[in-house]
Amino acid sequence: MTSISQHAAPSDAFRDETPWDVGDDGDTLHEECGIFGVIGARSASSVVALGLHALQHRGQEAVGITSFDGGEFFSHRGIGHVAHVFKNQDIFADLPGMMASGHVRYSTTGGSGLRNIQPLFADLADGGFSIAHNGNISNAMTLKRDLVHKGSIFQSTSDTEVIIHLVATSRYPTLLDRFVDALRLIEGAYALICTTPAGMIACRDPLGIRPLVMGRIGSSVVFASETVALDVVGADFEREVEPGELLVVDHNGVISSHRPFGDPSPRPCIFEQVYFSRPDSILGGQSVYQSRRQIGVELAKEAPADADLVVPVPDSGVPAAIGYAAESGIPFELGIIRSHYVGRTFIQPGDSKRHAEVKRKHNANRALVAGKRIVLIDDSIVRGTTSLKIVQMMRDAGASEVHMRIASPPTDHSCFYGVDTPERSKLLAARMDLEAMADYIQADSLAFVSIDGLYRAVGQQDRNAKCPQFCDACFTGEYPTHLTDYDADAVAGETEA
Amino acid sequence: MTSISQHAAPSDAFRDETPWDVGDDGDTLHEECGIFGVIGARSASSVVALGLHALQHRGQEAVGITSFDGGEFFSHRGIGHVAHVFKNQDIFADLPGMMASGHVRYSTTGGSGLRNIQPLFADLADGGFSIAHNGNISNAMTLKRDLVHKGSIFQSTSDTEVIIHLVATSRYPTLLDRFVDALRLIEGAYALICTTPAGMIACRDPLGIRPLVMGRIGSSVVFASETVALDVVGADFEREVEPGELLVVDHNGVISSHRPFGDPSPRPCIFEQVYFSRPDSILGGQSVYQSRRQIGVELAKEAPADADLVVPVPDSGVPAAIGYAAESGIPFELGIIRSHYVGRTFIQPGDSKRHAEVKRKHNANRALVAGKRIVLIDDSIVRGTTSLKIVQMMRDAGASEVHMRIASPPTDHSCFYGVDTPERSKLLAARMDLEAMADYIQADSLAFVSIDGLYRAVGQQDRNAKCPQFCDACFTGEYPTHLTDYDADAVAGETEA
Amino acid sequence: MTSISQHAAPSDAFRDETPWDVGDDGDTLHEECGIFGVIGARSASSVVALGLHALQHRGQEAVGITSFDGGEFFSHRGIGHVAHVFKNQDIFADLPGMMASGHVRYSTTGGSGLRNIQPLFADLADGGFSIAHNGNISNAMTLKRDLVHKGSIFQSTSDTEVIIHLVATSRYPTLLDRFVDALRLIEGAYALICTTPAGMIACRDPLGIRPLVMGRIGSSVVFASETVALDVVGADFEREVEPGELLVVDHNGVISSHRPFGDPSPRPCIFEQVYFSRPDSILGGQSVYQSRRQIGVELAKEAPADADLVVPVPDSGVPAAIGYAAESGIPFELGIIRSHYVGRTFIQPGDSKRHAEVKRKHNANRALVAGKRIVLIDDSIVRGTTSLKIVQMMRDAGASEVHMRIASPPTDHSCFYGVDTPERSKLLAARMDLEAMADYIQADSLAFVSIDGLYRAVGQQDRNAKCPQFCDACFTGEYPTHLTDYDADAVAGETEA
Amino acid sequence: MTSISQHAAPSDAFRDETPWDVGDDGDTLHEECGIFGVIGARSASSVVALGLHALQHRGQEAVGITSFDGGEFFSHRGIGHVAHVFKNQDIFADLPGMMASGHVRYSTTGGSGLRNIQPLFADLADGGFSIAHNGNISNAMTLKRDLVHKGSIFQSTSDTEVIIHLVATSRYPTLLDRFVDALRLIEGAYALICTTPAGMIACRDPLGIRPLVMGRIGSSVVFASETVALDVVGADFEREVEPGELLVVDHNGVISSHRPFGDPSPRPCIFEQVYFSRPDSILGGQSVYQSRRQIGVELAKEAPADADLVVPVPDSGVPAAIGYAAESGIPFELGIIRSHYVGRTFIQPGDSKRHAEVKRKHNANRALVAGKRIVLIDDSIVRGTTSLKIVQMMRDAGASEVHMRIASPPTDHSCFYGVDTPERSKLLAARMDLEAMADYIQADSLAFVSIDGLYRAVGQQDRNAKCPQFCDACFTGEYPTHLTDYDADAVAGETEA
Repeated sequence: MTSISQHAAPSDAFRDETPWDVGDDGDTLHEECGIFGVIGARSASSVVALGLHALQHRGQEAVGITSFDGGEFFSHRGIGHVAHVFKNQDIFADLPGMMASGHVRYSTTGGSGLRNIQPLFADLADGGFSIAHNGNISNAMTLKRDLVHKGSIFQSTSDTEVIIHLVATSRYPTLLDRFVDALRLIEGAYALICTTPAGMIACRDPLGIRPLVMGRIGSSVVFASETVALDVVGADFEREVEPGELLVVDHNGVISSHRPFGDPSPRPCIFEQVYFSRPDSILGGQSVYQSRRQIGVELAKEAPADADLVVPVPDSGVPAAIGYAAESGIPFELGIIRSHYVGRTFIQPGDSKRHAEVKRKHNANRALVAGKRIVLIDDSIVRGTTSLKIVQMMRDAGASEVHMRIASPPTDHSCFYGVDTPERSKLLAARMDLEAMADYIQADSLAFVSIDGLYRAVGQQDRNAKCPQFCDACFTGEYPTHLTDYDADAVAGETEA
Repeated sequence: MTSISQHAAPSDAFRDETPWDVGDDGDTLHEECGIFGVIGARSASSVVALGLHALQHRGQEAVGITSFDGGEFFSHRGIGHVAHVFKNQDIFADLPGMMASGHVRYSTTGGSGLRNIQPLFADLADGGFSIAHNGNISNAMTLKRDLVHKGSIFQSTSDTEVIIHLVATSRYPTLLDRFVDALRLIEGAYALICTTPAGMIACRDPLGIRPLVMGRIGSSVVFASETVALDVVGADFEREVEPGELLVVDHNGVISSHRPFGDPSPRPCIFEQVYFSRPDSILGGQSVYQSRRQIGVELAKEAPADADLVVPVPDSGVPAAIGYAAESGIPFELGIIRSHYVGRTFIQPGDSKRHAEVKRKHNANRALVAGKRIVLIDDSIVRGTTSLKIVQMMRDAGASEVHMRIASPPTDHSCFYGVDTPERSKLLAARMDLEAMADYIQADSLAFVSIDGLYRAVGQQDRNAKCPQFCDACFTGEYPTHLTDYDADAVAGETEA
Repeated sequence: MTSISQHAAPSDAFRDETPWDVGDDGDTLHEECGIFGVIGARSASSVVALGLHALQHRGQEAVGITSFDGGEFFSHRGIGHVAHVFKNQDIFADLPGMMASGHVRYSTTGGSGLRNIQPLFADLADGGFSIAHNGNISNAMTLKRDLVHKGSIFQSTSDTEVIIHLVATSRYPTLLDRFVDALRLIEGAYALICTTPAGMIACRDPLGIRPLVMGRIGSSVVFASETVALDVVGADFEREVEPGELLVVDHNGVISSHRPFGDPSPRPCIFEQVYFSRPDSILGGQSVYQSRRQIGVELAKEAPADADLVVPVPDSGVPAAIGYAAESGIPFELGIIRSHYVGRTFIQPGDSKRHAEVKRKHNANRALVAGKRIVLIDDSIVRGTTSLKIVQMMRDAGASEVHMRIASPPTDHSCFYGVDTPERSKLLAARMDLEAMADYIQADSLAFVSIDGLYRAVGQQDRNAKCPQFCDACFTGEYPTHLTDYDADAVAGETEA
Repeated sequence: MTSISQHAAPSDAFRDETPWDVGDDGDTLHEECGIFGVIGARSASSVVALGLHALQHRGQEAVGITSFDGGEFFSHRGIGHVAHVFKNQDIFADLPGMMASGHVRYSTTGGSGLRNIQPLFADLADGGFSIAHNGNISNAMTLKRDLVHKGSIFQSTSDTEVIIHLVATSRYPTLLDRFVDALRLIEGAYALICTTPAGMIACRDPLGIRPLVMGRIGSSVVFASETVALDVVGADFEREVEPGELLVVDHNGVISSHRPFGDPSPRPCIFEQVYFSRPDSILGGQSVYQSRRQIGVELAKEAPADADLVVPVPDSGVPAAIGYAAESGIPFELGIIRSHYVGRTFIQPGDSKRHAEVKRKHNANRALVAGKRIVLIDDSIVRGTTSLKIVQMMRDAGASEVHMRIASPPTDHSCFYGVDTPERSKLLAARMDLEAMADYIQADSLAFVSIDGLYRAVGQQDRNAKCPQFCDACFTGEYPTHLTDYDADAVAGETEA
């Protein structure tokens, strides 16, 4: 979710709470949320904590869990990792009940306040209602303006809260009707897990941009952003929540499926395969690890290199590097060692000190690299600053040639569907052509996998240009929805001017 | 303000923050709030902190300040005393602007959460709106039910929030009209300080049950619950905000007075004179210290005692004891020493351990008391448990006779106007007659000042029975407003059954 | 105890822990410590906490408790009031055993670190040894230098630690012998409570400068700085530990008394009567309240005033004001109201902002004071800054005349026996004669009780000039011991130059 | 360093501070410390923090830094990771000076207190003295008993403090003489960095059991446990501190080398190569990564397997798995995915819940593993519990065969040189033969590299049985020093009985 308010809002008393190591060097793309819910389980809240822990890579700044014990709702939220915010076992005694849901988030500028931590909760006329959202509503500002005008009072600066107010003010008779009424007004990307006194609602936007899967542990029903969370809590994968599907589960485990949006063609986010999801997740029937390994194979075919070693930028480059090495026959070796003691990197929101961080995160394996020609494999290039430093680190360690191979096409458009991307004008691929990029990062050669190569790696014949099988807007600029809150210039970026 | 929600509400992540010494031994009545605002002052927020500090006796559990810098609103809130929550000077840099308002509160059961700490704030269609409330809205639950039904979402469990939603959803054209529209719908007791981008609004309910005064420091205008706060910030007292008056002050210091409720007869709370207000405050033109001293004089006339020493229960009994001693000629001596290191007493909300606390708070001055006949002067008797212990302490210290004199009439009805009283059935005076009370507390004699004696002490000829000059419902049961949310039985209490 | 180290010492990781409201406006004298111990009691540590709470006025900055469960020693220490550091009942479960001792301290500059919080503890060859000290060792620096040279390593910058090292390195065969050996080497003032595996040791320096009393609760033996702590824990006063006496109590409650220093004439600190001790304590057989009230009587005789009201500077001036009023016939009234929500005042160590604080602490009762001639009664004048402000406050409130009467002789020498006094050159009485002081504080008249009046008030005929019955060095400059660590100039002060 | 005191010691006030994720599943061996020092650098303390961060894998529980600014010593210590304890940049302003040293530690039972966090510091007669120690002194208890008997008072329960007291009480004239005098009395393993007003001292025990290297950044001199810390701070590796060498560096950068122990044959710890050191470190001239990869090669030769995939237990098994795959021709694939959001595992000291943790740390890559015969490569087996779970996880994910290969010989003796090992009786290899171990962990086959294979992998022809080139006592039981504090039974373990 994205911060949407430009309004004068009181500063938050808690802003000085130190965000944990959010693992951001400002030069990667960030999934902004992971969601998890379970209904019909003993100690539901601790199951949720474990599930969220497995989804921690989707959001490291804050975490919240809401539970329902048949009578009342309870919640606990905090800034930091799941393991930190829920380190005290006593917390779970304060989150009783057999239904619970939770959310991990990556913060966006200005939105680090506690009141933005999800699940959001409201007392509606029919009782409590919680909502956990992965995605971004691209007409939230427009809807909010209208709601405030009619008397709605917003508690947070989150786009997600718009959904709650739309539900609260809808004139339809039942909660489910009101909820569908609300969804029909919003555009963008959303996977949602809601809890109400009657049970749990899970749904995905019509295009299924953000992922959501369903599993079972015995008689309890589980929803999660990725299958890895099912594995970790010991649930069996049942199926994906389908794009445009809305599932309602009551306290007896009875599930009903609704399809309020008809049957549009799905467009799941392809970047989940490239980077966001855990390699041990299965997404749309496809093993993420295998997709990434296969991207490496495609890349080796499309962009071979004459080299001594294939070196991954750890850890995200490892599967593609294994594929590249296997296809090319060049040995796979750990030429870069990653510290265990940073997240994706060790820095707080904002970008001061970003540059000093690379070294704390990655260190060259000098003894291995010295005198060698290496193929460096990374998942993507965002601003290019990290790539530049990594290439430099390899040269400082004595590498005689550095050939950079990227396991995704050039990222040259911003995402408006729940991924934290820089403005388009800061994306290296939006600013330069391939040759200029190679120069910028000082690589001896640079190549990206082609968009068709990527589609092949994830199991398609090739990209269906008329009706692409995935949302690949970050690579192609083909946004599958309206972007009401964003004017055309913002979307196009100043690089187009 | 009182917690009004019986709804399922999520527990608050912060409930385990330790409330400070809230100074409650469960056997005194509590003013639940103090409010303070200033407009047109440099460092307005630090002026508010100082003012709230002087009003700390009106609410010890939590404190909040909201400021406005001409563009944005800022706020800081926390659990604990003013001196604790605002101990770091840096906080004031985060509360910039020349208008600020604040609130101290005493918590009620279940409502200790951060989100109930005032001033409450909302982004309305015309901009930010903050509200600080002293009093209690006696139809808040009824109004809230209706608002929620129409789609309003409440953030807190405070009755005060009802006012904000009434303003937000009012169809009148201007904010002031909408505010008056809201006030017309509420019943009960309220002194309010609101801030809006256009300036500050201060008002008192039509009967003026809760106090509110206006002062000036140079060109800035100040509002406060009591005059002592004016003294402490260096402001000159100007006048009381009149019952039913609504004052609007803009950023140029221009003040306009409105009287939306016509001109009903005022009924200010008489217990402010007896106990709540600081002795150095002036209330309705009457020095609180002199009122209390004079109650002692009346009490000595109405209920003399044959004794060696007049001993106050410190500190609230001291002025009446001075009056009693002066009138009776019996020497005033400190027969009980009060520790400086507890508030009104050292205990947290809830009532465990209440009993161990008396000793930590008060200790007999044995060398003085031994062998003496003493007149003990206290301000009131609530449940009677403290009186019993104090009498016992005097006897243990060797007092030969203990004559208890109480500087108020018997408290035998609950307050529904912003004072935290036990249910009627727990009030000693509602359970017993005078003789039984004397037996219960084991005093050699017991007397209360008469209701007319009390009225005389505060400067009236006597009580006007048809149209009493004060709200004295806690003594007489004559509630001056409807009590919509409370059924007749609750008001009457089971002792009437 | 005083910080003695000038050595390079590592800064303490915890120095930024916020000291609580230490109640210091820099213009009062401070007792630096209170001590309490109990042996043979269930939940000994919680008895100690209650006892220390009653001694909180003797030291507000830090508190520690050490217990012994027959096998091991345990301790908990922290910065802040007893009620804060021990607010969590679970702490007492971590302080098991039937013997415990504790200490409250007022910090001195540079010595706020946790490692200086007492009881200090060491593992000696014969087992654990804890020590809690009230007083000051006036040759500690000299002794420390020698000990360090021989290989002792100090953990704290406290003078008290010298005693432990002297015990540890003594060559005598038994712990008691080694302890006496250590005491023989130190000079100055000390009341000590030590715990060892064999039991508790309590002792007072040969002159008995600092107080220490013994009491009993059933079969347990209690030691405390003042009798008020006995009252609060429910112990019966037995007797004072005599000057120069060393009491050893074993785990069966067997007590043995030792007098290692022969039988010098006692010189207890007279300022305990004037200011330090609680009014409900009994010191040397004399009620502190009565002493102070009697000082007021003497003062009224020695320095009458033509006035309308006797007004105490609360709370320490109250007993003397009652005495003055009784003797003079002028009515006693509360012309100054003291806030409950500061300690002795609201400020942190260091003296910034000292000046803004008076108002937060005291407020004039304008309605009473306006137009009146008042006699103001205070306990002492240190720097004079507070007196000046209080007199000014009375005038601002409309007092027509202000006659200041001080319930102690002029304080014109520093204390080296455990009281935190400014350098002599900052004491008003060391800088000016009576008339100049009256001018400085802008009083219409000023008088101090005479030294003989003071001695009479505390029950003596008069002061025995050859061999004074008390240590009154702060008034007379007659120090009863060597002051090895302090050169003559420091003692005399630059005012003598 | 190891906790050595069995004495009654007061519990620490800070024990309830939550240790961070210490990364311990109780089934790995732990290096207990990393040390780092720099002299002659601006912002020396922040260089140390960065260096310690790179050594975080050597100790995750606590960290401390001491600095010296030419006049005074400063220190900051805390529980948690370097990035946590030093997250606030302001801390470095409180650690001024151009010389600083630091320490990270892994706690041992009962020794988590703040006072055990190094560097330890003392004010000696010649000034401040700090010491940071990696290793374990095997006669510390014996020495301590003697020191305490003579009057030394210990502050910590750390063996390291013995060295300070030996220095403090030595009768030699210069600090260096006293330090050498102290070292001659101790036995065991130690790499030390000390700071004194005159400069820095770095030394290694005569056998060089624990590592220590020297580097330079411009004119500053750096010491660190491993070369990776030199890389991260931007220092150039100069040479190892040699076994038995003592280097003194003054504030002008002048270095003198001393060899107080003559010239014994070195016996550096071989487990540093196998597991403790970072793969990007160079130890004794040997790349740790290459050593581990080569162990995999040796293992493939010694213990081939008929399988489809080589799967490392991440991350420590990866280099050996790469070697095994390269030698065997079986593809290397990530069959187990490791979460980034735990340290080595997510659990606190003590071993409750150890069992639930494996899943949070590692998850099977089901899509890859299902139906495959896999060779699992891990670094070592300690208790065997983790191996059992990992094998089980592979089978649950559908692996048809699981062949476990271990990149070290069987660990069947405890370490007494600074590595936290279970008692011998809990080591799987001390309890069972190879076949029984294979059964216990339920692997289809199990093999360890031979001791000679290990020696070959680290660059030796083979192990010199008479005078082994390394300390390999954990594999062979041949301890290279006396173990004064440990009786023969403890060393041998009850399994020998």
